[in-house]
Formats: sequence, structure tokens, C-alpha cells
Amino acid sequence: MTVEERIERVLKDAVRRTRRASAPETLSEAISYSVFPGGGRMRPRLCVAVAEACGGKEPKVCDAAAASLELLHCASLVHDDLPCFDDAAIRRGKPSVHRAFSEPIAVLTGDAMIVLAFETLCEGAAHVPARLPGLIRIVGRAVGAPAGIIAGQAWESEPTINLSAYQRAKTGALFIAAVEAGAFSANSDPESWTQVGEKLGEAYQVADDLHDAMSTGDELGKPVGQDARHRRPNAVKELGVTDCISRLKGLLGEAISAVPPCTGRAELVLMIEQETRRFIPRRLAACAA
Amino acid sequence: MTVEERIERVLKDAVRRTRRASAPETLSEAISYSVFPGGGRMRPRLCVAVAEACGGKEPKVCDAAAASLELLHCASLVHDDLPCFDDAAIRRGKPSVHRAFSEPIAVLTGDAMIVLAFETLCEGAAHVPARLPGLIRIVGRAVGAPAGIIAGQAWESEPTINLSAYQRAKTGALFIAAVEAGAFSANSDPESWTQVGEKLGEAYQVADDLHDAMSTGDELGKPVGQDARHRRPNAVKELGVTDCISRLKGLLGEAISAVPPCTGRAELVLMIEQETRRFIPRRLAACAA
Repeated sequence: MTVEERIERVLKDAVRRTRRASAPETLSEAISYSVFPGGGRMRPRLCVAVAEACGGKEPKVCDAAAASLELLHCASLVHDDLPCFDDAAIRRGKPSVHRAFSEPIAVLTGDAMIVLAFETLCEGAAHVPARLPGLIRIVGRAVGAPAGIIAGQAWESEPTINLSAYQRAKTGALFIAAVEAGAFSANSDPESWTQVGEKLGEAYQVADDLHDAMSTGDELGKPVGQDARHRRPNAVKELGVTDCISRLKGLLGEAISAVPPCTGRAELVLMIEQETRRFIPRRLAACAA
Repeated sequence: MTVEERIERVLKDAVRRTRRASAPETLSEAISYSVFPGGGRMRPRLCVAVAEACGGKEPKVCDAAAASLELLHCASLVHDDLPCFDDAAIRRGKPSVHRAFSEPIAVLTGDAMIVLAFETLCEGAAHVPARLPGLIRIVGRAVGAPAGIIAGQAWESEPTINLSAYQRAKTGALFIAAVEAGAFSANSDPESWTQVGEKLGEAYQVADDLHDAMSTGDELGKPVGQDARHRRPNAVKELGVTDCISRLKGLLGEAISAVPPCTGRAELVLMIEQETRRFIPRRLAACAA
């Protein structure tokens, strides 16, 4: 089974647990709609890749950690799309959850997916419970207050934004958690991986800014120009396209340099390099070669 | 330290963890605003009372479980008050979170409190990790899909409501979790307590219906007549006031009968009887004597 298949399987099992004959059907339909078909599944793939690079012998644990991060990522997308935030009509090329279902269902879908993420993590690590507190800490820190993705979104409600805390919370936190949870599930020191996650998170932020500024909506599967519309910081506006691409490549190089010694280092580096191609908008791929 | 003080202390410690110099301030203010001052803290007091009735020797574990249930309860109130649900202006005698802060902050506050609940549970049980999977299962089941409070709220979006599944999910689930988590944290069999939680949950539902139909807004600290306004089922409408009070007392009697043998049975029964007084609206207390 490929890594991608393993991730989809754990996600499917998790979503299936939300269904039952005597349960409200729309909620479980909306949860499934929010998770499938997925986007790049970058964070869970990274989590599993790091666990394997560390020689992890507990695929069940790292798959559960990976799936929990993906569920939390999907939950944040559903809530970020709500009318009181981005009011986005389209996500992953189809109507956003509040458009396809309703606003109440979108709020509840995000809520239920946060709970499901912790349940999924728990089920995957229940046979090695001593690992569970560390995993919950890594995942919780990446999502909640003071410095996870929810806090990142909350920065947009502050009169003055601390730009580095904002970007680290909104984008970096889940990448940091992906590498840390991967390492921890393989019995390796999560902190020796933090910097890899930080640099990949920053690279992704720059890539996302490039996509937002340069792609068409069809390429992206969501509305473009959202940063300008919501007056959010965007690296393209700040640096210009060429310098942005240089910065992106520089950050990916720094991420690779930060990978600590481990048994599967070469494969992991290759995977991060391949990821670069996904990061760069198609029409800019030529300039980035 | 009284049980009440223990619960407030764990909640304060949890809320404090959401603050940090480089964190978005409004979010942590809104979290604190949602938790303090509390309502009756019925669910966490019940959780601790059951743990003590079972002779529990791990107050840290049951306090954490109690606090996590209260955080999840508070999170559900913040989201239920949102404009797309009840659009409630008042909660616990002060402006609801979206009125006092903003709608984005109210969504994020509820989200962050769900995460905080699992982190709090994890911190309190990290020294006995073998207990953690069971506690997460009990708490997760009470909150998420298919049958927790979030699913309960989602029933209101269905074309046809399964009334018993709706009420069990929306109100019963957290009471069931309170007694089960209390018992489990004291090394007792949680399932021998399920029925106590079910009956207390049903009693609370009837009491809440009575309050909604009979109290004034000042007594209740939230708008009255919400069930009629939102066309939700209400036992007063169905049974009338006198039969409602009889039913409430009957359910509390059944809850007490269901309490399994345990070292502190007498004290627990006394506590449930005292709770009855809180359950019945002040102006009806005379008829209920």
C-alpha cells in the first residue's frame, strides 16, 4: 500500500465512525465532503515521510497522527471559508461547505472534525498509550491557542498583526507538527525536526502567496486574489515575483539542510525536492527551473 | 480545597495556557470570558462527585476530565449562540461572545476551546497514560459525531428529527460522559454508571424546558422562550407544567436508584438530591416541594 493509500484509508475509517443509523445524516455527509477528494495532503504525507525516514516501526501511530493533522487542516478550511471570515464560495474546485450545505452545518462540521482528529489520534496510538500525551501536545500546539492555526486566524481580528507570529501560527504550525509528530511516532526526538517544519511552512506560505497572486481560479480550485481582498500580507506584493521564487527555493534548500541524520535521509530529501514542483504555480514553473 | 475550587483552578490553569506575549490577545480574552464566571458547573461537579463516590485516588485525573467537559460545554454554548443558530444576545447574564467580541472571534473561541479540552485532559492524565485512551473515548463520544453535543445541534438541520437521539445527543451525552469519566478516572467500570448519566441528562432536559417556558430572562441569564421561537420540542408544551415537574422528580429518583454500589453512595445521592433544587425554576419550587 502506498503512503497516499494508507492516509486515505485512515481518513476513510475516521469519517466512517461519524455515521450511524440514528445520527444526523447531513453532518456526516458534510464531514465526508470536506475531507474527500483531498487537496495535496501535503501535511500528512510529510508526517509519514519523516516517520519512515526515522525508521519508524509503528505505521499505525504515524498514520493516525498524519490523518489527525489532515482532519484539523480540513476543519480550518471549512471554518475559514465561512461568511464571517473569507466568505469563499469555492474550495478545492467545488462549493464550500456552507454553500453546499448551510452555515450551521459548516460550523458543526468544523467542530466535529476537530473532535474526530483527537479521536483518530487516540485510536491509532491506544496500543502504545505512553506515546499519546506527547502526540496530543504536538498536535494541540499546532491547532489551538496561543500559537496554532486557530490563533493564526485570530490574528486577523487584532488591531495590529505580529506578522511573524501570524504566519508561523497560520501556516507554519501544522508543518512543524507534521515533522514533529512523524519523528515522535518513530521514537525520534521531535525537536531535532522543528526547523525542517518551520522552513517548509515558510516556503509553503510564500508558495501560497504566489498562487494567490498569480494563478487562475481554475488552477487553484479556490478564489484567487483573496489576500488583496482581505488586506492580508502577501510576499508577492512585498518582494515581486522573481524574488519570491528565489526566496521559495532558498527556504526549501534550508529545509533540506536542516534534516537531521536519519536512516532514510536521502529519500526524504528527494521527496521534499519533488514537493517543490507542486509548490510553484504552473505558469511560473519555467522561470523556476 | 472544595470541589468547586478544584474545578475553577483547573479551568483557570487551562485558560492561562492560551495566553502568551506573542499571541492574539482578543482570542484568549474571549476564551476567558466564555468560561468565567461559570454557570452551575453541573457536569464537572457531577464528574468529580462520581469519582469520589468510587473512592478515586487520582484527583488530578478526574479534575482534568471534569474541566475538559466544562470547556466543551462552554464551547458549545458559544457556537450555539451564533447568529446562524440561536442568534442569542445574552448568555449567563452578559452579552454572548459574538456580541461582546465579534462573530469571527466567537467561532475561533469555540474551536480553540475544543482543542483546549483535549489538551487539558491530556495534561491531567499524562502521568497515567494507560487511562488516556479510555478518557478520550468517553469525552469524544459525548461531543462529536455521530452522537455527541455537536451531532445533537446538527439534528436541528435535518428535515425530520429523531427526538430521542436528538435529546440524548444534545443534553444527555455530556451527563453520561460526566459520570463515566468520573468512574473511569477512579478505576471503576464506566458502563455501570451510564444509566445514572442518562437519567440525569433527561431530568436536566425537562428542567431546561421548564426554565425556558417558565422563567424570566433575569432568572435565567439567557433569553427565554427560545424553544418556541426555534420550534424545538419542549416538554412543557407536551405535558403541561405539573406533569413536567412530576416527570422531573421521577427521573431524578430513577437516577438515584441507578447509582451502583460504591463507597461514597450516600454522599452522592445527597448531592443529586440537592441538585434537584437547582433544577426547578424558583417560582415553581413551592409546587415541587
